[in-house]
Amino acid sequence: MVFKARHLWMYLAVASITVFLLLGISEAGDPTGEKTFALDLRGINLSNSFSWILLTGFTILFMQVGFVLLGGLIPAKNTLNYMTHCFIATTLGVLIYWFVGFGLMFGGFEFLGAHIGKGNEYLGTSGFMLLGDAYDVRTILLFLFMAVVATFIGSIIAGAVAERMKLCSYVLLLFFVYIFIYPIYGHWVWGEGWLWNLPYGAGVRDFAGSGVVHAIGGTIGFVGAAFLGARKGKYNDDGSSNAIEGHNVGYMIIGTILLMFGWLGYDAGSTLAAGDLRASVIAANTLLAGSVGAVTVLFLTYLIHGHTDVGEACNGCLAGLVAISAPCAYVAPWAAVLTGFIGAILYLISVWIISSKFKVDDPLGACSVHGANGFWGLVALGIFADGSYGGVYGVITGHYGQLVSQLIACGVAFAWAGGLSFVIFSMLRGSKGNSKMRVSEDVETEGLDVNIHGTLCYPVQETPGSTDTQGAVA
Amino acid sequence: MVFKARHLWMYLAVASITVFLLLGISEAGDPTGEKTFALDLRGINLSNSFSWILLTGFTILFMQVGFVLLGGLIPAKNTLNYMTHCFIATTLGVLIYWFVGFGLMFGGFEFLGAHIGKGNEYLGTSGFMLLGDAYDVRTILLFLFMAVVATFIGSIIAGAVAERMKLCSYVLLLFFVYIFIYPIYGHWVWGEGWLWNLPYGAGVRDFAGSGVVHAIGGTIGFVGAAFLGARKGKYNDDGSSNAIEGHNVGYMIIGTILLMFGWLGYDAGSTLAAGDLRASVIAANTLLAGSVGAVTVLFLTYLIHGHTDVGEACNGCLAGLVAISAPCAYVAPWAAVLTGFIGAILYLISVWIISSKFKVDDPLGACSVHGANGFWGLVALGIFADGSYGGVYGVITGHYGQLVSQLIACGVAFAWAGGLSFVIFSMLRGSKGNSKMRVSEDVETEGLDVNIHGTLCYPVQETPGSTDTQGAVA
Amino acid sequence: MVFKARHLWMYLAVASITVFLLLGISEAGDPTGEKTFALDLRGINLSNSFSWILLTGFTILFMQVGFVLLGGLIPAKNTLNYMTHCFIATTLGVLIYWFVGFGLMFGGFEFLGAHIGKGNEYLGTSGFMLLGDAYDVRTILLFLFMAVVATFIGSIIAGAVAERMKLCSYVLLLFFVYIFIYPIYGHWVWGEGWLWNLPYGAGVRDFAGSGVVHAIGGTIGFVGAAFLGARKGKYNDDGSSNAIEGHNVGYMIIGTILLMFGWLGYDAGSTLAAGDLRASVIAANTLLAGSVGAVTVLFLTYLIHGHTDVGEACNGCLAGLVAISAPCAYVAPWAAVLTGFIGAILYLISVWIISSKFKVDDPLGACSVHGANGFWGLVALGIFADGSYGGVYGVITGHYGQLVSQLIACGVAFAWAGGLSFVIFSMLRGSKGNSKMRVSEDVETEGLDVNIHGTLCYPVQETPGSTDTQGAVA
Repeated sequence: MVFKARHLWMYLAVASITVFLLLGISEAGDPTGEKTFALDLRGINLSNSFSWILLTGFTILFMQVGFVLLGGLIPAKNTLNYMTHCFIATTLGVLIYWFVGFGLMFGGFEFLGAHIGKGNEYLGTSGFMLLGDAYDVRTILLFLFMAVVATFIGSIIAGAVAERMKLCSYVLLLFFVYIFIYPIYGHWVWGEGWLWNLPYGAGVRDFAGSGVVHAIGGTIGFVGAAFLGARKGKYNDDGSSNAIEGHNVGYMIIGTILLMFGWLGYDAGSTLAAGDLRASVIAANTLLAGSVGAVTVLFLTYLIHGHTDVGEACNGCLAGLVAISAPCAYVAPWAAVLTGFIGAILYLISVWIISSKFKVDDPLGACSVHGANGFWGLVALGIFADGSYGGVYGVITGHYGQLVSQLIACGVAFAWAGGLSFVIFSMLRGSKGNSKMRVSEDVETEGLDVNIHGTLCYPVQETPGSTDTQGAVA
Repeated sequence: MVFKARHLWMYLAVASITVFLLLGISEAGDPTGEKTFALDLRGINLSNSFSWILLTGFTILFMQVGFVLLGGLIPAKNTLNYMTHCFIATTLGVLIYWFVGFGLMFGGFEFLGAHIGKGNEYLGTSGFMLLGDAYDVRTILLFLFMAVVATFIGSIIAGAVAERMKLCSYVLLLFFVYIFIYPIYGHWVWGEGWLWNLPYGAGVRDFAGSGVVHAIGGTIGFVGAAFLGARKGKYNDDGSSNAIEGHNVGYMIIGTILLMFGWLGYDAGSTLAAGDLRASVIAANTLLAGSVGAVTVLFLTYLIHGHTDVGEACNGCLAGLVAISAPCAYVAPWAAVLTGFIGAILYLISVWIISSKFKVDDPLGACSVHGANGFWGLVALGIFADGSYGGVYGVITGHYGQLVSQLIACGVAFAWAGGLSFVIFSMLRGSKGNSKMRVSEDVETEGLDVNIHGTLCYPVQETPGSTDTQGAVA
Repeated sequence: MVFKARHLWMYLAVASITVFLLLGISEAGDPTGEKTFALDLRGINLSNSFSWILLTGFTILFMQVGFVLLGGLIPAKNTLNYMTHCFIATTLGVLIYWFVGFGLMFGGFEFLGAHIGKGNEYLGTSGFMLLGDAYDVRTILLFLFMAVVATFIGSIIAGAVAERMKLCSYVLLLFFVYIFIYPIYGHWVWGEGWLWNLPYGAGVRDFAGSGVVHAIGGTIGFVGAAFLGARKGKYNDDGSSNAIEGHNVGYMIIGTILLMFGWLGYDAGSTLAAGDLRASVIAANTLLAGSVGAVTVLFLTYLIHGHTDVGEACNGCLAGLVAISAPCAYVAPWAAVLTGFIGAILYLISVWIISSKFKVDDPLGACSVHGANGFWGLVALGIFADGSYGGVYGVITGHYGQLVSQLIACGVAFAWAGGLSFVIFSMLRGSKGNSKMRVSEDVETEGLDVNIHGTLCYPVQETPGSTDTQGAVA
């Protein structure tokens, strides 16, 4: 497995250099932005959109800190491994997306008046490595925004496969995800492909990725977690399950507020135009859905367990945020509150079903937060869209076509991501059981951090000034 | 107490659903933003303001991470409890504010040309749940900004009542604060109520909430801390006090820089218009006041104790930031430096008086940072306003009327917040001493985290690879 | 040493008050911004630039949280000391820069149509304390952006001198750096001084400070680390070196992503005009260079050590970000990838040379990340600039003049920062060896945090509910 990964790298490196040599330092498009600036009223409207998209894009990258901090929900001995997965998704993810993903996803798309080369209903075929015509300020603006969004899917998957997957297998998986699964489904919806153009309602709409990002990511994570099997000690022989406690609930709280902050930028920035004043409604909907998700789970865990479970409440907040991602632009604030409320309840039910019925071990609850609520977000759009934006009419306005489109989007997402990831995980596992994909039992017992990364996330330190080494600071 | 809280929830839920049914999915105002966009030069000026207010609003939400991290100043065993309070203030706070607070605070207010329904000098009466006419991109823009600002007051109070208040009492308190105390005083100043229109000087001015947010929050916190009594072990029988050490000064430093970042957005964003170029002066004043506050305390603690106390310096920085919040738009940079310098000294004096003279135990110094410096900020505006902005002339220009207005604002804030919170805490405590409001002695000794939340913030972990369980990583 | 520092403070305080009294509350420039707003198409273009520069400036301040978190790379016992250094660089740095640095650096500069007083090719002589004509919204906008940028250099130096420098010496050093070394070299390049106007190519160009900030900071750090000598235990008698393990790799990962987020704002915001649509290319270049730096080191450490070293990969990411800072605006994305790739390899080589050949102990690798890659960034601009922006043509377009300018900038930076810091460190050390500058051996063994700051960064806590005090939570 190790050697394959290395070979893949080399092939990519050689291919990359060849392409550079063939294309040379070609320049086209509008690299300086001067032509683009002249398009509009002294360019001011465009420059405003540039600022808006860039700044919200930056906050999206920042959300990766939030994902990293969710590692507080798993034991300390495997935290560094999870964080490293997120870090690789962020950095390697950007590179693969630049290399090939962006072109597949947005080839043929028109953005702020710039055509990103060629593409059809099923696949984009231009814009790779931002060479040639894609060396244009508008195209690269879209790339920046979409590249940071793309990094999420790797972190979502990392949550579901945490504590037991080999690093090399995870890296190989990322290549498949960023080259095939994610950009192609993304092209069908965001790249204005065949799902976008469905004849029911306005066609599939997914404003900020409940489907494209979260449902796809959650589905891949679910298949991965099922293939890998449960963590050691998760299930007893009689089928009952044990809670594997996290090590840092404080990190969860910080990470959640941080993700909420980024989510505001992500959802509102997805207008991709500063002149779209709907952004304020979008942001308020996002804030309300996340808040109601947290409060709902806080209250329900208090009713059920007798004490509030703030770690679960954080996931409830994230569930609300995932659910509102698709409909945030199309619904009124009261509907956002309802969407988040239902999303939080769905999260709790989904965790119970996946853990106790399906016996799939999902350490961070990624399948429930992102998967289940991603699908719910697509459906919620079909129900609550009130027709005040983008000509999208949901069930509450008496139209059923939009819901049909959204359900088709759900089915396609599940089949595409589930099917392809089934194939990929089968390949990764090989014929001999999953020893190629999963760390050995010794490594799992000791912790992945020491074995794979050569260090703990928080090494034990001698207490200064004490004569023994019992105390530890982290 | 528990049952009451639960009942309150249910009443609110029922009321909410009733209102929904009565109002239906009414649409009015300008939900799409198209009419609003057409108001101005191709809408560009407005869209610029939307971007500005949204992005600064997002950074304001992010400041809650800073508040959470200030938990480093209390012992580890109660940290999760404090962090949970902040998290509840953020999420439940937003919901209550959406439900009723925003309407009370800004009903009748005019913003970017949109009237938010009805209201008088004393109370707003429109805009609840953003239904009806309030489903307008401008109204919702104001809601977003003000909702995230509103979350602060809960976190400020959480700092003063930390380590000993019951969760249910805290939640009940939040309802009173977000429904009565905060929005009504806020209406009087920011909602252009009777204080805003006082005939002395320009009327009360409070640019970014030294009074509305910090003085009010600090006063409520002070009353709460006095009612709750000191933490176990804080005071000895002879009246002398013990320092209760924090557990993570690094969190303090990180939280403080993070708050400073957010404060820049908060103060500058309070222009509520991108076309108000004074924003650069506001941001520079904020940066300077915070910096001088930190440096002043660093230097003074070095002179007093022989070593710098960086935890205190962080609070000094926050004191400077609180103090400059009201005057930041009206004064020149040199005055901002003076305001922050005096704020830091005031912080140190206030901590000493509150702790040693009043014998009130304020774990995070919230009463001194937010309370004392909130009042100082209001007064500083009356002294240093140089007349270059908004027609506000302070004492240094030879006018005394503004100072009179500001002193009235101080008196009203103290009487309103102090009086109402006295009543509320009396109710919460009931007749039997404060056993209803304060955790039991056993819980306090063991730590609130284990007892109320069922887990430590940082559970002790076995050290991987060691044969004993002595070391701990967090 | 202590007394000198105290005296310096007092002199500064007296000087400051004198200047205030002399100048009075003079007002000039455009403090309200109304005149400035009227300059342009209803001020909209300007207001857009204000929003852009302010918001990116805020993210730059936020990067200090990232610097603080890099403290995870050193042992826990000295972490608070390093964090405090960063905090002082942030707060005291802003004050000194306001007092004198900004005037020296940008006196005579023209920005958005405002002249910042007087200055010549070698030195600015106006704008001190933002008094007089400098009380102008545009001047203060530039001040805000440049003041937060200026705080970096202190944190870069803090990384190289960590774990052994006395606090007073560090504070004194900051005065020299912020009054002499940094602003004067900055004036030569960014203040459009003699280096900017060199007759080769377009003159020296350094878009976001590879040279002005990082090369200068890294060089000072290198001289400081050499003067201070290695940490106890770093080198054995036979000249071989020991790795001194960090204590929190998680902090490194979080800090790195956070810095990457801020770097996007820093590089893109350095357009200092929202109408410069090249910002999207700049941001994408920054993202790509950082990502490729991380992936390169991840892969190389895997090849070399057999496991990935994620802490090193974080430094690789930062190395890529430093390297792209100068050329980010002038090159195409493929060149950014190459620049980051070479930067990461250069980082690994530089660490090895500095540690094993020069025997200089650089705890955070600051000399390699910021120093070596700062110089590389200047050179990369001369090679890869493709002529599409600002009339800057690099070697790949067949022009060699730009490379000559960039090499002169490198030489001047090295001589200026190296020479002056050699003098300063000689003064700080005095004649008696470096006992004045370096903490005593006992303090170093026990840890600086307990001795200098009176507390650990993470004090050991008793485990609640256990009968012994062996476990510790942080």
